[in-house]
Amino acid sequence: MAYSSRLTQAQLQKRIDAAQGRIECDLIVKDVTYLDVFSCEWRKGDIAVSDGVIVGTESGLKARRAINGRKKFIVPGFIDAHVHIESSLLVPRYFEQAVLPRGTTTAICDPHELTNVMGVPGLKYFLDESTQLALDLRVMLSSCVPATDFETNGGGKVSASDLRAWASHPKALGLAEMMNVPGVLFKDPGVLEKLEAFSTGPIDGHCPLVSGQALSAYAAAGISSCHESSRLDEAAEKLRKGISVWIREGSVAKDLHALAPLLTLATSTSIGFCTDDRNPLDIASEGHIDHLIRGAISSGVDPAVAYRAASWSVARHYGLIRTGAVAPGYSADLVLLADERHCAVESVLKSGLTVDEVFASRKTNLGAGGFSNSIRANVPEATDLEGPRGRVHVIGVEPGKILTTRQVLQHDAPGVAHLTVLERYGKGIKPSNGYVTGFGTGFRGAIASSVGHDSHNLIVVGDRTDDMRAALAVLIATGGGFCVVRDGVVLAKLELPLGGLMSAQEPASIAKSLKDLRAASRAVHCELAEPFLQLAFLSLPVIPSLKLTDLGLVDVDQFKIIDVRAG
Amino acid sequence: MAYSSRLTQAQLQKRIDAAQGRIECDLIVKDVTYLDVFSCEWRKGDIAVSDGVIVGTESGLKARRAINGRKKFIVPGFIDAHVHIESSLLVPRYFEQAVLPRGTTTAICDPHELTNVMGVPGLKYFLDESTQLALDLRVMLSSCVPATDFETNGGGKVSASDLRAWASHPKALGLAEMMNVPGVLFKDPGVLEKLEAFSTGPIDGHCPLVSGQALSAYAAAGISSCHESSRLDEAAEKLRKGISVWIREGSVAKDLHALAPLLTLATSTSIGFCTDDRNPLDIASEGHIDHLIRGAISSGVDPAVAYRAASWSVARHYGLIRTGAVAPGYSADLVLLADERHCAVESVLKSGLTVDEVFASRKTNLGAGGFSNSIRANVPEATDLEGPRGRVHVIGVEPGKILTTRQVLQHDAPGVAHLTVLERYGKGIKPSNGYVTGFGTGFRGAIASSVGHDSHNLIVVGDRTDDMRAALAVLIATGGGFCVVRDGVVLAKLELPLGGLMSAQEPASIAKSLKDLRAASRAVHCELAEPFLQLAFLSLPVIPSLKLTDLGLVDVDQFKIIDVRAG
Repeated sequence: MAYSSRLTQAQLQKRIDAAQGRIECDLIVKDVTYLDVFSCEWRKGDIAVSDGVIVGTESGLKARRAINGRKKFIVPGFIDAHVHIESSLLVPRYFEQAVLPRGTTTAICDPHELTNVMGVPGLKYFLDESTQLALDLRVMLSSCVPATDFETNGGGKVSASDLRAWASHPKALGLAEMMNVPGVLFKDPGVLEKLEAFSTGPIDGHCPLVSGQALSAYAAAGISSCHESSRLDEAAEKLRKGISVWIREGSVAKDLHALAPLLTLATSTSIGFCTDDRNPLDIASEGHIDHLIRGAISSGVDPAVAYRAASWSVARHYGLIRTGAVAPGYSADLVLLADERHCAVESVLKSGLTVDEVFASRKTNLGAGGFSNSIRANVPEATDLEGPRGRVHVIGVEPGKILTTRQVLQHDAPGVAHLTVLERYGKGIKPSNGYVTGFGTGFRGAIASSVGHDSHNLIVVGDRTDDMRAALAVLIATGGGFCVVRDGVVLAKLELPLGGLMSAQEPASIAKSLKDLRAASRAVHCELAEPFLQLAFLSLPVIPSLKLTDLGLVDVDQFKIIDVRAG
Repeated sequence: MAYSSRLTQAQLQKRIDAAQGRIECDLIVKDVTYLDVFSCEWRKGDIAVSDGVIVGTESGLKARRAINGRKKFIVPGFIDAHVHIESSLLVPRYFEQAVLPRGTTTAICDPHELTNVMGVPGLKYFLDESTQLALDLRVMLSSCVPATDFETNGGGKVSASDLRAWASHPKALGLAEMMNVPGVLFKDPGVLEKLEAFSTGPIDGHCPLVSGQALSAYAAAGISSCHESSRLDEAAEKLRKGISVWIREGSVAKDLHALAPLLTLATSTSIGFCTDDRNPLDIASEGHIDHLIRGAISSGVDPAVAYRAASWSVARHYGLIRTGAVAPGYSADLVLLADERHCAVESVLKSGLTVDEVFASRKTNLGAGGFSNSIRANVPEATDLEGPRGRVHVIGVEPGKILTTRQVLQHDAPGVAHLTVLERYGKGIKPSNGYVTGFGTGFRGAIASSVGHDSHNLIVVGDRTDDMRAALAVLIATGGGFCVVRDGVVLAKLELPLGGLMSAQEPASIAKSLKDLRAASRAVHCELAEPFLQLAFLSLPVIPSLKLTDLGLVDVDQFKIIDVRAG
């Protein structure tokens, strides 16, 4: 794996000359306060940029363009240490458009969702796209496709040799989150083959609540980061066992408040920030990595420490040798702040280009045509969506949590809704029907989605099977997306034709649709503020306790499929 | 370049089982206080080792052998961030024998000396040897052979393509110290070709007193470390420009006292320790990296910070991903200390083996036969060793400094000695004669050496040319080494037949010879405590101000050869 691209002699000549004032630089930010990540101190200087790299930090150089940096701050561009871009619903080029102005100049992505839907071509799509972006998008190769045998995916089994074939791609960085913790701990041969193949580089982890000897074994297997800590003691144990802690603030899972106390000067070189799964509304309204930095500082983290964690620490972890610092030779990935305590982003440079310059040169071909209309399912009859009657196991959903509770209730008790997962890869599997609480006792209608981790079968919740059927019909007709239906009427929808996961629309357009969907959800009296985010995790059988996949109801604690009927 | 070797599935299986107590570990150190480098804190635990790696840090595992660690400390094995093993006079296997018991478990070497003498086979010798050692010896590929055009070496010009051919060796790590600072700053094509070829990995620097725009240009060219800082402000500037600072304490150059104040919790991840050039007497009497740690702590550095710098920080810099921490999955390179404040090394484990176990399995074949008797020179006549008479440029030597002063004196003034460098690679170049002060007004006899950076021609200093001739004759007859002669009698000598640089003898035997040589130097009334160490730098034309090579007297400040006669 090539972590940093080779410099040419022409590049070397240019930067050597620019650094010594023999040629004019492109840009200088004068009299600015910049962060020295190596000593975690703020320093005064003139930051000079030439040919996309920083060539000076002191006064004395000249440039075609100068910016007055007085009373302003420069920090290295932010790095999202772990992100599934698919969760932004944006194709990579629009993801870049959403996050670059927020200061995120590098992202370590795992194309786990599209690869589950499409197989290796999904992986290849992100690798191809990564070479077209100004954003430095690095791809960790998805390790767990499928995530479990409890569901049907479209991508089939992606093996170690499938992944090895892409390991030498210049943007491939290592093995993506190893979610199959039992597979590691019980030495599953397919898992060990992947750990072996990628053992010379970074391997991301995913080990919520794993501790003690199990965590030691997981670390000893070569896994060197985890973004799944939700408790302070949990993260602290990972840290001292050599597992770098990526603090996550997604749209559903939010760990910053709990973990911020761990981030100190001493630990800052082993801690980073990530978004994992974050939707475009949250990116637009709250922010991206800048949002985590603000939150960390307001939780009491020293700003210099927070900015170091947001940049250099992650770059060093992944071996990105010329990224993540304000120093000569480093990529001019710079965030200019009006205020360092509130991470008030004033402007952003990526490889020395302003955001406007980046987008002016952006190609309009989104290069994702091959992934449209991937839904291969017939619209079921309403009667096929009926679950068993009587006392049943019911999934309990709580607002903002991806962990579910388990209950045994009468199938028609107040607040119990129908939940159906429909296999969508043309295998002709019958709908898988179950029950859920948490959407509210007044919920009337149906909410459906083609985003359902990790296999992304169609999922629909409702109080009446005919509305559920109508909602599924919308998704099947449009190639996937979100929709809200009541009394046979589509109240709102968002089409996600790329793999049923992503739209080719601009962020603003998607944000408007999401707001419409929120309004429609309220109109059908759904009590969850973000029903689509919660639906997206109701099929995920690697997160406890009870989940529904296209193959049935999964008892995650026992790691087996159980009958919906209770006893 | 492969920074860390691939793990096999068998290794993975074993460590996963051992970490969970399914199989017995090899060793546990119980109730010990260990350093967590990730947060720079001391923690209590049981450190369990299996198959050469750490598999646990908590209680609960069982092992065939247990050590009571109560009131003791465990820190990660020390890393020498930059060393020329040749300067220890020891072949790599004996170097290992000298430093491993001192806690040094990894060394980043630059085989610059042997490569200057022998060319690429010298480089290959160290790469070959590195695979035979328990010590994790990593080889930076020598970038500056020859160092300048002002001298004759045996290795010829080693080009970028010569180096590239070895870059994929599993123990090759990057490009060794780029001493040709003007070559970088003035874009010498041969230098840029090397910087380009190695731009995806670490490139070591060598830039004493370089600062300002020149230092920015040097950093921008991709050079990421330097061990040549002797002043605090100098090191601080390098640090903030992204050049990691390796604090050096060699046998001649000693920078620890000046630089220790820079080493804090904030900077500790960008600072390491190195020995550069350290002789076996100093290793035996003072220590190796342990000596630097002790010195740092006694200078006020927090012990946890010092140990972090001595291990993890350097490992991370060079991308050694499973080295440098006391955590599961890390190589069991561990130093057990009776006392952490004085770095009192009680025992050392390398990949889980004790020093005794390592040496019991050591092969006796030193594998260096091809390098014996490399001296190709005829013994000159005594008259050939006479320099010009009258007013001459004289090199001024000061005790313990490799920088020299410049004087103009009468050739026979009190304290002025003859100095001759004799080309030894069979080119038949006439002796190069000059003058030197600093060996003392009472100096009578001759002191000669085949160790003379960087080309390692023969060098001899004396008050009488016939003793100088006799001393050169000894070196030529024995294949190189050190000797002291008076009135035609050899008072002491050490043979260094391997390239004229190294002995195949054990450290203790070499140490005895060095003591004899010291005594002999005193007997000839040499005032310098370490005349051989100082002689070794009198030919080095990259260190100011005046040096003598086989081609003549070099004015380093003007970077040209000048006449010995003064005006």
